[in-house]
Amino acid sequence: MLDTAKQGFITLMQTAEFLKNNDNFVILTHQNPDGDTLGSGFGLAMLLNSMGKTSTVICSDEIPEKYSYFTKFAPQNCDFGKKTTVIAVDVADSKLLGDLEAEYKDRVELCIDHHVSNNGYAKLTYLDASAAANCECIYDLALLLGVNVDKTMALALYTGISTDTGCFRFSNTTAKTLRIGANLMECGIDTAEINRIMFETKSRIRVELERMALEAMEFHFDDRCAIITVTREMYEKTGCKDEDLEGITSISRSIEGVIVGVTMRERQQGGFKISVRTYPPVDASEICKKLGGGGHIRAAGCQLGAEFSVQQAKKEILKYVKSVLEDDSAGIITDK
Amino acid sequence: MLDTAKQGFITLMQTAEFLKNNDNFVILTHQNPDGDTLGSGFGLAMLLNSMGKTSTVICSDEIPEKYSYFTKFAPQNCDFGKKTTVIAVDVADSKLLGDLEAEYKDRVELCIDHHVSNNGYAKLTYLDASAAANCECIYDLALLLGVNVDKTMALALYTGISTDTGCFRFSNTTAKTLRIGANLMECGIDTAEINRIMFETKSRIRVELERMALEAMEFHFDDRCAIITVTREMYEKTGCKDEDLEGITSISRSIEGVIVGVTMRERQQGGFKISVRTYPPVDASEICKKLGGGGHIRAAGCQLGAEFSVQQAKKEILKYVKSVLEDDSAGIITDK
Repeated sequence: MLDTAKQGFITLMQTAEFLKNNDNFVILTHQNPDGDTLGSGFGLAMLLNSMGKTSTVICSDEIPEKYSYFTKFAPQNCDFGKKTTVIAVDVADSKLLGDLEAEYKDRVELCIDHHVSNNGYAKLTYLDASAAANCECIYDLALLLGVNVDKTMALALYTGISTDTGCFRFSNTTAKTLRIGANLMECGIDTAEINRIMFETKSRIRVELERMALEAMEFHFDDRCAIITVTREMYEKTGCKDEDLEGITSISRSIEGVIVGVTMRERQQGGFKISVRTYPPVDASEICKKLGGGGHIRAAGCQLGAEFSVQQAKKEILKYVKSVLEDDSAGIITDK
Repeated sequence: MLDTAKQGFITLMQTAEFLKNNDNFVILTHQNPDGDTLGSGFGLAMLLNSMGKTSTVICSDEIPEKYSYFTKFAPQNCDFGKKTTVIAVDVADSKLLGDLEAEYKDRVELCIDHHVSNNGYAKLTYLDASAAANCECIYDLALLLGVNVDKTMALALYTGISTDTGCFRFSNTTAKTLRIGANLMECGIDTAEINRIMFETKSRIRVELERMALEAMEFHFDDRCAIITVTREMYEKTGCKDEDLEGITSISRSIEGVIVGVTMRERQQGGFKISVRTYPPVDASEICKKLGGGGHIRAAGCQLGAEFSVQQAKKEILKYVKSVLEDDSAGIITDK
C-alpha cells in the first residue's frame, strides 16, 4: 500500500465509490464562505440528489445573499435524526470550520479539497492540488459517476471556478480549468451575469473606502514602492467591515512601475496588519520576515503593535522595503 | 450564387485559399489599436510566415509599448516595392483605418472581421459575427491551414481573445472561446502574466483620475442612478489623455443598487460627451435618444454643446434619466 493511502488519501474513483456507498450527508464548507467552498458544497448536494441521496450544506458563518442564485436550488434534506455521513469541501484544516469545528472536527469522514496545504484531518481525503478550484473536483466526480450536470449544478460549479481563478486570470488557471468552464457554459448558464455579480458589483462603502485609500496612497523610492494606509478613522467614516477590504491589498501593486505594494490596515484594537505584494525580483516574504511575519515570494504579511503610530509604522515597514530594494547584488532592480 | 457571396462575403475555406494564392501582404489594423486588432494582425503575420510568405502589419496610430511581448516576434518583411496584397483585420469600416484610410480604402482585398456591423468595404470579407474576438477567426484559419500555432502566435491570439472578452467575463464569450483559450494555453504561454499586463496595470494618471472621479460621484433617485463628471479641470490637473479614460464609464454602474450609470466628460473645446450604462429594465438608448444620441440597450451615448455649464448639463441628462425611471408602466423599477 502506498504511503499516501496509509494517510487516508484516496483516488477520485474511491471517492466516487464512497459517495455511492453512503447516504444522508452533512456537507461542511469553510468559515467566511467564498464561491468555491459554496459552489463545491451546493454542487455536491445537487450531485447527490441526482443519485437519489439526501444532504444538507452547512457553514459556521452566514452565507452571503449574493450566492442565492445557486444555493436556492439545493435540496437541503439531510435527516439529522438518522445516521449522517460528514463530508468537508474546500476545507484544508478543521480549524477553518469555524464554530462548527468543535462539533465536527473528529467526525469528517471524507474531505474533498484542492489545497496542497491540506493536513489530512479527515478520515479519508481526496486531494487534487492541480485543480485551480475545488469545484473542478466536483465536476470530475459528476463525470466519473455519470451524473448529468444540469443548469443549476453548472451555476454552482462555474461560480467556484470563476471566483477562485479571478475569472481564468490567475496563474492557477490551467487548460483543463478553461475546458471545464466551456462545458459548464454549454449547460445553458449566463456566465456574464454570474461574473457581474461576483466581480463587478461593489458596495458604496467599498467605493468610498477605495477613494480614501487612493487619496492616502504614497510613493517612495523612485515610485517603485506604493503604500496605502487604511486607518481606523476611515473605518469609522465609511462604516466598513473586514469583508469590504477584500482585494484592497492588490491596488498598490497594480500601478505602473510599482514593484512593492504595501497595504497597512490599522486594527480596531490598535496596531497594524501589513500586507506586502511584490513583482520580480523582490521577495515579499524577505521584507515581512524582518518584522516577524512571513508568507510567499509575491504575497506576504506581518504585524506591528499598538505602540506604533501610523507614521512610525509606515517608517518601520518602509525601512525594510528600502533595504530589500537596495540589496540588489544582481543589479536587476536599479537597472530597471 | 448566394446574395452574401455577391456582396463579397466568403467562407473560412475560401479565406484560407486566398492566403495560399497570394503573397507579400500588408496587414491593416484599426486606429487606436487594441489587443484584438493587434493580436489578429501580428498573429496573421506569424501564420503567413509559417506558410513561407512575407507580410508587414501597419496601423495609423502608434502601437502601445505594452503589446511588445508579441509584436516583437512578427517578421515585418513585406516588400513595398513589389506587388502587395492588402488585408484588414478587425476593421468594420474603412473609416476606422484612420490616417491610412485615404491610401488604402479602395485597395483592401480581404477583410477578416467579427463585427456584425461590418459594411463590406473590402473586395472580399470573411465575417464570423459569432466570434467573441477576431483572433478566434485567425485561430480557425491556422487550424484549417494545418499551420502549427507556436508560442509566439499563441501570445498574440490569446491577447486578442482575452482583451475582447474581459478575460472570458463578458457576454460575448462562448464555450468555443474558452476552448480556444485552453488550446492556446497549452502552447506554453503565461496567461496570468498577459492578463496582468492587460488588466491589472494602471498608470498613475489613471489612478489619480479614478480617485477624482469617485470623489465627484453623485447619487440620485434613491441611489438608482450614479453620475460621474470628468471636468476639464481634472484633465489639466492629472495631465490625462483620452486613453487614460478607458473603462471609466463602467465605474458608476458597478455600484450595488445602481441601474443607471452616467459618465459626463467635458470636452477640451467645451461641451460634454455623455455615456450611459444601464442594467435591466432600463434602456440606455431611450435616455440618449432624447438628447439626439443613440446606442444599445445597455450602453448608449449623447452629447451636449458648449452652451451648457457642468451643472446645467448634469441637470439636463438627469431630467431624462428621471423620466425613464418614472415611466415604469411595468412596475419593475419602483418595485425593486
